[in-house]
Amino acid sequence: MRVELISIGDELLIGQTVNTNASWIGSQFSKQGISVDNSVTIKDTENAIISALDVAIYRSDVIILTGGLGPTKDDITKKVLAGYFSTELVINEEVLTRVRGFFEARGKEMLDINIQQAALPKSAIILHNEVGTASGMWFQQDEKVILSLPGVPYEMKHLLSTQGFDMLMKKFRVQKLYNRTVQFQGIGESYLADKISDIEDSLAKKNIKLAYLPSTGMLRLRFSGKFSDEVENDISKSIDELYKRLSKHLFGGEKKSLSEVVGDLLIKENAKVGTVESCTGGAIAKELVQVPGSSRYFEGSIICYSNELKRNIVEVKKIALEKYGAVSEEVVLQMAKNGQKKLNVNYCIATSGVAGPTGGSEDKPVGLVWIGIAGPNSVRAYRFQFGNNRGRNIQSSVLTALNLLRCHILKL
Amino acid sequence: MRVELISIGDELLIGQTVNTNASWIGSQFSKQGISVDNSVTIKDTENAIISALDVAIYRSDVIILTGGLGPTKDDITKKVLAGYFSTELVINEEVLTRVRGFFEARGKEMLDINIQQAALPKSAIILHNEVGTASGMWFQQDEKVILSLPGVPYEMKHLLSTQGFDMLMKKFRVQKLYNRTVQFQGIGESYLADKISDIEDSLAKKNIKLAYLPSTGMLRLRFSGKFSDEVENDISKSIDELYKRLSKHLFGGEKKSLSEVVGDLLIKENAKVGTVESCTGGAIAKELVQVPGSSRYFEGSIICYSNELKRNIVEVKKIALEKYGAVSEEVVLQMAKNGQKKLNVNYCIATSGVAGPTGGSEDKPVGLVWIGIAGPNSVRAYRFQFGNNRGRNIQSSVLTALNLLRCHILKL
Repeated sequence: MRVELISIGDELLIGQTVNTNASWIGSQFSKQGISVDNSVTIKDTENAIISALDVAIYRSDVIILTGGLGPTKDDITKKVLAGYFSTELVINEEVLTRVRGFFEARGKEMLDINIQQAALPKSAIILHNEVGTASGMWFQQDEKVILSLPGVPYEMKHLLSTQGFDMLMKKFRVQKLYNRTVQFQGIGESYLADKISDIEDSLAKKNIKLAYLPSTGMLRLRFSGKFSDEVENDISKSIDELYKRLSKHLFGGEKKSLSEVVGDLLIKENAKVGTVESCTGGAIAKELVQVPGSSRYFEGSIICYSNELKRNIVEVKKIALEKYGAVSEEVVLQMAKNGQKKLNVNYCIATSGVAGPTGGSEDKPVGLVWIGIAGPNSVRAYRFQFGNNRGRNIQSSVLTALNLLRCHILKL
Repeated sequence: MRVELISIGDELLIGQTVNTNASWIGSQFSKQGISVDNSVTIKDTENAIISALDVAIYRSDVIILTGGLGPTKDDITKKVLAGYFSTELVINEEVLTRVRGFFEARGKEMLDINIQQAALPKSAIILHNEVGTASGMWFQQDEKVILSLPGVPYEMKHLLSTQGFDMLMKKFRVQKLYNRTVQFQGIGESYLADKISDIEDSLAKKNIKLAYLPSTGMLRLRFSGKFSDEVENDISKSIDELYKRLSKHLFGGEKKSLSEVVGDLLIKENAKVGTVESCTGGAIAKELVQVPGSSRYFEGSIICYSNELKRNIVEVKKIALEKYGAVSEEVVLQMAKNGQKKLNVNYCIATSGVAGPTGGSEDKPVGLVWIGIAGPNSVRAYRFQFGNNRGRNIQSSVLTALNLLRCHILKL
């Protein structure tokens, strides 16, 4: 099953929009052990679409087109495809009813160009769009499938996830892969590989593969093997073992972010959290607040970027700042403890560090970050040495701090 | 000049990396009035590279390849190109010296595979890489140019900006475009177009074009015309006029972000800033702190997500919270004024709103945000109604608040 993507749209070629559709579709096929062989981006002209289709039909089995299905004049994909496959556009009553409902629900007037969105190629199988007005279209020619989808990311994802992928797997009799992904914080790729080499070896014998997917301050590990109860069981057992072995780093599956995992724990404990941030400058608070409903556990923060505020609002002792400096174990401990009281929370995260690019010294180089965690019964500080990049240092500090809080709550 | 991009790398096809190189190159050509006609992403195999080159050389004049120039075995682009253009790899002494210097400067040992990075195709013109070890390679065939660049974004950008673009413009005798971009906050595309229709019309007569480039909470406007003193002068005059007409929204050119512009103003005034945030939960502080050196003007923040903290730390009056609710003019005014004192700053930004997706009411729907700005002589509150998306509401609030602060400092 050779897969090719055709992304249609001038906005992609002139760089006004980054093509995240292509990478998302690639990652979804990759989860099924299928690789996309070619991905092309073209202008929204009839010639460009026809040329790309000619090439793709020659070399690929599955061609997924995205874009050009909107109601306006520059959206020509549907017409070009109807011509290419020598079929006519006919109003699909089911689609028309849904498009009409879509406008009614939003209290918007339905124009003739919107009605035209229900005019679809007669020979195509229609994929029904529950989240927008452009339908997906499935054409077949010589055992090849050409699937046209809207370019709006959430509409495209909806159509592929709910219908497209299943239809493709069935049509090409692809044995589905079973996938599970777990997420780690605070452990590097090579170090993790070393810690789990025995598990990886024994899974390899059963044709279950591991993929390491790193990003700043995080690492995702994906298990995949052919769908069977045995494979599901083997992967499940291995993950249980990982949870035991690496509980300080393994924070969950792929559905929830670290801040959501921490939020769930806080809700379970009926506990409140706050932060006292220096070098992260509010980035931990922002990450916590990103989660809808975080007001159930997030109380607030003090961002004491200056030493004056560390003293005046957080009441860090003057002597500690003078003797050890702001970036020190003693100061983050005071920040965490005092913050806990002032913010009236069960848990308080504190950070102080040298985010860079300047401001480092021999003793306290750029990337040095102290993180303090105060909990109901204890307060602890941890030292980290990150790199030279300001943005990445802040991001690493945020994720590290949230994971330390997780460990603190779970007493790991 | 028909331009085609070939991005090489499995990581792009399986969606592990989003192809930002293609969009950056597209945007740079677009600035010169040149459109990229095709952009293809392929596997890093010899066959895939050769097939893509065959097609590209047939239909395009300029072919830019990115990726596959690293020192490891899976980086095969250089070898494939040498074969394709029937030339041999020879050590380039100038490049070898620089690569050696690169390793010496970092105190790292230079391995044989690194020496091989100085082995380059004899017939290619070499583009010298000052920020990495992979050189750019310029091949010509039948008046067509094939330019191979590393896939690391900053190395690719460096080679194109310092050498590649100029060489292409010269070779194809393209008259360069003069471009200037200005950035707006708090004004929509259609509203701006209406306000400046007379300017747009008169520039159109001189073949100077405007491009509207919107993003969440922001709008960039790009002017472009053929390089000449007259065009430069016309654009410059128009921008001066825009600064007069739309001073509340036009915050600067494209080189600085809004938080940098605000930072510059604060440095100039020798003033300090702080924030008291509820619905933005630290996102304004984070945006200010992103700027290296922001400790010169950013003191800190109080994130009072809960009403208890609004009362206990910010000392918002209980009666105000009870009578008007947390999301109200009265409360943000108190937050801004009290924050100014507590944080000991000249300017204080305060926010309180319903970020969503839930928590809205008839009176105070999701997306309602109050922003308060306290300055040396006055305090004011502003009401905004954003949309339904939590992330976009927070981002819009951040940019709106920073722009209000800019207006406040400049007394606009």
